[in-house]
Amino acid sequence: MEWIEKPSLILDENRVRENIARMAEKARTGNVQFRPHFKTHQSRTVGRWFREFGVQAITVSSVDMAQYFANDGWQDITIAFPVNLRQMKQINQLAERIRLHLLVDHPDAVEHLGKMLAHSVRVWLKVDVGYRRAGVLWEDRVQLARLVQSILRQEKMHFAGLLSHFGHTYQASGPEQIRKIYRKAVERMRVAADVCRKAGAEEVRISIGDTPSCSIVDDFLEVDEIRPGNFVFYDWEQQRLGSCTDQHIAMAVACPVVGVYPGRSGAVIYGGAVHFGKQFALLEDGTKAYGVAASEGWRITPEMGLLVSVSQEHGIVRLGKEWKDRIRIGDVLTFFPVHSCLTANNFACYHTTRGQVIGKFRSLFSEI
Amino acid sequence: MEWIEKPSLILDENRVRENIARMAEKARTGNVQFRPHFKTHQSRTVGRWFREFGVQAITVSSVDMAQYFANDGWQDITIAFPVNLRQMKQINQLAERIRLHLLVDHPDAVEHLGKMLAHSVRVWLKVDVGYRRAGVLWEDRVQLARLVQSILRQEKMHFAGLLSHFGHTYQASGPEQIRKIYRKAVERMRVAADVCRKAGAEEVRISIGDTPSCSIVDDFLEVDEIRPGNFVFYDWEQQRLGSCTDQHIAMAVACPVVGVYPGRSGAVIYGGAVHFGKQFALLEDGTKAYGVAASEGWRITPEMGLLVSVSQEHGIVRLGKEWKDRIRIGDVLTFFPVHSCLTANNFACYHTTRGQVIGKFRSLFSEI
Repeated sequence: MEWIEKPSLILDENRVRENIARMAEKARTGNVQFRPHFKTHQSRTVGRWFREFGVQAITVSSVDMAQYFANDGWQDITIAFPVNLRQMKQINQLAERIRLHLLVDHPDAVEHLGKMLAHSVRVWLKVDVGYRRAGVLWEDRVQLARLVQSILRQEKMHFAGLLSHFGHTYQASGPEQIRKIYRKAVERMRVAADVCRKAGAEEVRISIGDTPSCSIVDDFLEVDEIRPGNFVFYDWEQQRLGSCTDQHIAMAVACPVVGVYPGRSGAVIYGGAVHFGKQFALLEDGTKAYGVAASEGWRITPEMGLLVSVSQEHGIVRLGKEWKDRIRIGDVLTFFPVHSCLTANNFACYHTTRGQVIGKFRSLFSEI
Repeated sequence: MEWIEKPSLILDENRVRENIARMAEKARTGNVQFRPHFKTHQSRTVGRWFREFGVQAITVSSVDMAQYFANDGWQDITIAFPVNLRQMKQINQLAERIRLHLLVDHPDAVEHLGKMLAHSVRVWLKVDVGYRRAGVLWEDRVQLARLVQSILRQEKMHFAGLLSHFGHTYQASGPEQIRKIYRKAVERMRVAADVCRKAGAEEVRISIGDTPSCSIVDDFLEVDEIRPGNFVFYDWEQQRLGSCTDQHIAMAVACPVVGVYPGRSGAVIYGGAVHFGKQFALLEDGTKAYGVAASEGWRITPEMGLLVSVSQEHGIVRLGKEWKDRIRIGDVLTFFPVHSCLTANNFACYHTTRGQVIGKFRSLFSEI
């Protein structure tokens, strides 16, 4: 780590490839389409690693991100976000060159989209099976049927099926509860799919997405497609949920130590909210932790250090007893973030443990 | 707002200029040096507006940000962050071309800096007067004296004085408590300054920085320099603290509506954690809110909408009764963020209410 000058996002390329290989194999065995979500890594280079494992179709979370990956040759992209009608120009440009999948959950969106589409797209109905963020309620038969029929009437829309994100698995107490949520959610999607068929849809594919489910369940049941994203790096939150062990976590943030206060906070690192974000893990003793120390071999090591507070560029680290007198100004400490997606999003590039620098998409918006 | 396609950072340029004018005038009347912190706006253009009000000296939070502003002609910059010894090359490059101020709070930092500095810098002793983040404890006379003497021995260091950030004002219940914290903190700095003088320092300037104090106190007492940053935009948090009214808040985020669910969440906007961050305001009824609706005239309007949940790109808005049936997919809703510094940091540019697009520094790190 001698080269580190500033907070740096470190990737363990071996672990990344192992995570991809494992999930690709699981999809193959389970006979489901693997359409990984690229919003976690947002990197052309990491995307190419997925290609090595046979991945052809991907998921993204914004129109701009779709454009970024289309520019790198991806031809089959789902924008897993309720369609933003204010980006129709970009959407039409994409629909012209790639196989584009969009999400709708409201008749107004279908109608506007129908009028404004210049090229054919696949359309998924976003269904809410318990997360309560977006989507048609799975049990709202009237609305489901109405939407399906409305989509089927549109010349430029091919009805693809039902798509959902079981985001409530993140609130689960552990693997057993995740399996339960999963089974219930899939059953609800199956019921909704029947409604769609009765409304006239010939084929109704079922697409689901969260990393906890995809990591933990053994049988994908009636599901046709999985869209996990976070698994490519995993993180401390996933480890706490039981989706992975710390030996699967492939991303960490290396931070220079800029202050040591053995009697008080422990240490201050250059690494704060603009790097880690403000998402915290609530530990059993009531501590809010924004990150946890990764030891030499990248094991979760709370007894070494916990990132207990973050302001804009500062992080306060509570050092363990054995570490208090060993850490010096100018040292580098490495932390697993709580949530790798949001942390990765804050950085402009990755450094691999093999010494490579990898570029990534940065959240768009005209740079001046 | 017809032009808005994506979540966009909007600046009310008039309010920004008024905020700058008010603080500059207050500093002039109070006979203190005004050295505004530029980490809030991080923009060359906004920086130039400060120049129009006579500002010549600034504060930043990283070496890279210092470089960005030095490239725009700023000649007197304080990096208000414990010196990062791993960026000595950049620090020396800066010290050669501008009047550079650095912070130290540990003998190791002074010693290393002394060996590695190639050009003269001003050095401030960072003092902790109650915030407990970084800095020498104000009452640790032995350490204070030791540090001053160590700085005075270094050929390339000019001892500038004591610097502190009264970050604990953010936890205050309101203006009266902020005034109390301020008075106590300044008194502690005065005591520490006496220790520095006795240790041999000829001049000991006192530099302080938080927006709540600088906005609320009427008399800067023994202070020589103020470094507020947030006041340039203010935000919902500052309004709740009593540092400003909503008519001073100069920055908001405009977000397209992508989903409406009158029976459930209310609305889903394109605008999530990657835009607003995950810092929330805890309201009296227990609601966690990541932003609050700004009405047409940019008044805080919680009865219109509260941003009650954010995931990567999604925001869930709880709409007020009168708004539930009026908001449509494709509309634009505008929100004041909880914390403008962190929100601004997430974007690559601003759009002014006058229709101008303004570039800004983006958090560094070699872009590839």
